[in-house]
Amino acid sequence: MDIKFIENGSVTSPQGFKAGGVCASIKPSNTAKRDLALIYCEKPCSAAAIFTKNLVKTDAIAVTRKHLENGVAQAVIANSGNANACNADGLEKAERMCALAADALNIDENDVIVASTGVIGQPLPIEPIENNINRLAGSITADGGTNAAEAIMTTDTVKKEAAVTFELDGKTVTIGGIAKGSGMIHINMGTMLSFIATDASVSSEMLKSALLEAADVSYNMVTVDGDTSTNDTLAIMANGLAGNAEITEKNDSYKAFVAALTLLCKDLAKRLAADGEGAGKFIICSVNNAKTEKDAKGIAKTVIGSSLVKAAMFGADANCGRILCAVGYSGMDVDVKKIDVYYKSAKGPILVCKNGLGVQFSEELAKEILLENEIEITVELNDGEACAEAYGCDLTYEYVRINGDYRT
Amino acid sequence: MDIKFIENGSVTSPQGFKAGGVCASIKPSNTAKRDLALIYCEKPCSAAAIFTKNLVKTDAIAVTRKHLENGVAQAVIANSGNANACNADGLEKAERMCALAADALNIDENDVIVASTGVIGQPLPIEPIENNINRLAGSITADGGTNAAEAIMTTDTVKKEAAVTFELDGKTVTIGGIAKGSGMIHINMGTMLSFIATDASVSSEMLKSALLEAADVSYNMVTVDGDTSTNDTLAIMANGLAGNAEITEKNDSYKAFVAALTLLCKDLAKRLAADGEGAGKFIICSVNNAKTEKDAKGIAKTVIGSSLVKAAMFGADANCGRILCAVGYSGMDVDVKKIDVYYKSAKGPILVCKNGLGVQFSEELAKEILLENEIEITVELNDGEACAEAYGCDLTYEYVRINGDYRT
Repeated sequence: MDIKFIENGSVTSPQGFKAGGVCASIKPSNTAKRDLALIYCEKPCSAAAIFTKNLVKTDAIAVTRKHLENGVAQAVIANSGNANACNADGLEKAERMCALAADALNIDENDVIVASTGVIGQPLPIEPIENNINRLAGSITADGGTNAAEAIMTTDTVKKEAAVTFELDGKTVTIGGIAKGSGMIHINMGTMLSFIATDASVSSEMLKSALLEAADVSYNMVTVDGDTSTNDTLAIMANGLAGNAEITEKNDSYKAFVAALTLLCKDLAKRLAADGEGAGKFIICSVNNAKTEKDAKGIAKTVIGSSLVKAAMFGADANCGRILCAVGYSGMDVDVKKIDVYYKSAKGPILVCKNGLGVQFSEELAKEILLENEIEITVELNDGEACAEAYGCDLTYEYVRINGDYRT
Repeated sequence: MDIKFIENGSVTSPQGFKAGGVCASIKPSNTAKRDLALIYCEKPCSAAAIFTKNLVKTDAIAVTRKHLENGVAQAVIANSGNANACNADGLEKAERMCALAADALNIDENDVIVASTGVIGQPLPIEPIENNINRLAGSITADGGTNAAEAIMTTDTVKKEAAVTFELDGKTVTIGGIAKGSGMIHINMGTMLSFIATDASVSSEMLKSALLEAADVSYNMVTVDGDTSTNDTLAIMANGLAGNAEITEKNDSYKAFVAALTLLCKDLAKRLAADGEGAGKFIICSVNNAKTEKDAKGIAKTVIGSSLVKAAMFGADANCGRILCAVGYSGMDVDVKKIDVYYKSAKGPILVCKNGLGVQFSEELAKEILLENEIEITVELNDGEACAEAYGCDLTYEYVRINGDYRT
């Protein structure tokens, strides 16, 4: 199957979608930045979403969940600057956001998906949204995905947007998405929001299933403990304008759709990791030849989430003990005596551990490899056939600075 | 029961123990520091130890475990500068260290406990130990615990030693200990070593049981994932010189001994947390009125281990969202709507969350409270009677610096 990335692709790349983002001054200290996003489809879409597993949740999630009970949505409204979580009036305000968007777009408020990201436990100021919703609705365009991507950023330093295209039943199908999330050093931390649009024809049930499959090997692999902020939301809308036969079961078309969606989600997930708070380097941990997929994933996540591994990558220190130690406490089923560890980058690979034991290697070459901006840590378990990849970044002074003074 | 701390107490405070520490230059770049420690008792002791749960283990643990099978030990040899882990010749060298100590002290090599801490995956140079063992054995004294405490330090900035005394059967019993461990920001990282000596008369079986009870609420509460470095070792030796009736069952004397041992271990554990790598502040998380002790402990450990909470403490940022978020992803059984959160320090307490919702508070007072060096985060669950405390520190630039370049 041939899946292609679209240059400058975004959530508005599929037919029928418009989007925009404006500065509503929700966060007083950030008055110059876009902080309110809108995504709209010219017709109701089949839709699905998955959410954080944290027990502490924003009320926006409760509202979105309710609105998606019928599997239909037509718009997304999202703000940055305030998470609307742990507030007494959170539910009321999340519903109000949907009503405002519905009014401005002349659609049913039950067809609106709502999401928020930012500081927790401080009341969301609703006036900035009331005052700017019409301007926002009037500004949406078929190439406005990029403004929406900007409006959902918090500590992100770059916008995350991408789109892929492929053929289905002789029709060209496009899937595009935007994402935000930057507190990914230790996942528990940062809200991840991602909104995906497609012109494929897919039932809401199959959309949900495809979304779970794609997230499992993409967004969920940027995290240590799964989706655990209070606000994480990954939503998808499919409007059917591509004209393919509707996907209503797990047939070959479904598989093709999942493959394309997975490629898109992996791309966005890697961008999240690379732009982790304070990140200087993008790190992939590849675990090969594990007994089971669960073991491979568990080890990849543990290694990528280890503060010691992250700090060693920051310092370009080819310490194999840090990797072995993380594998050892991952709780997964491994035979320590079979583990090989490599570091890889554009400067080549280097073996630092063989059969669970440290080996002699060129410190000079290792340093050269680890000074690159993209590093792969390969853990060969030599004990089965399952593989997994997890995505992360290094731990830097800048991460500490950002999170030492997040609210101000 | 009256348990008193002894001023300048150490592992040599109980009768019959001598200790010392010398510079053997095991780590070439650290030639000026003590790096080889010896603890000796004039007679064989009943003894017990508990170890890391990491699958990747130093061979020193295998040797110590074998030597303690009969519940008897008479000396401890420990080095810093090299963990003797993940090396092909680790077992041989750990055994050699015991033989060297036994020869120098004229005791049975099976009665020697061995431990190492430092870099993983690089062969332990044995010559420095061979060359210095006699000088070390000749230097041990009844007030040499402090030199041993110094010799086991790695990135620790202060020595950790303490001793407590209490009455048992009309006899004065003393328990003293030393500890090291500084990579405690995220526990998985730093080797924790602690050696405890007592002149109480206690069977090795009861010693093991007492040690497990004490560690469970002390050393294990400085950690996020339990004992997970490759080398963690907590060992205790009891020589019976105090003259109490031997403790061989869980009677009142056992309970008194556990209470005193727990007090000592909590004191040493707090010192480990306060001296966490790069730490600027000591943080306690107290969880009150949980449904079960498991829930209380799980939440306390999750909060204290959260990088976001740690970074917020570094920045004196009274962010209640960080605490609620950590409680929410702890995996424990909580009713979010009942949670209250306070920050406390010498400057007073401040309520930042009531019934799971953020409350208005004085940012000025909050800042003043969080700028202190000892902070307590109190999580009131209002949902039961179980309580727990966990110990940690803030996440600082210095932590990143230390771990970015650990090996050099």
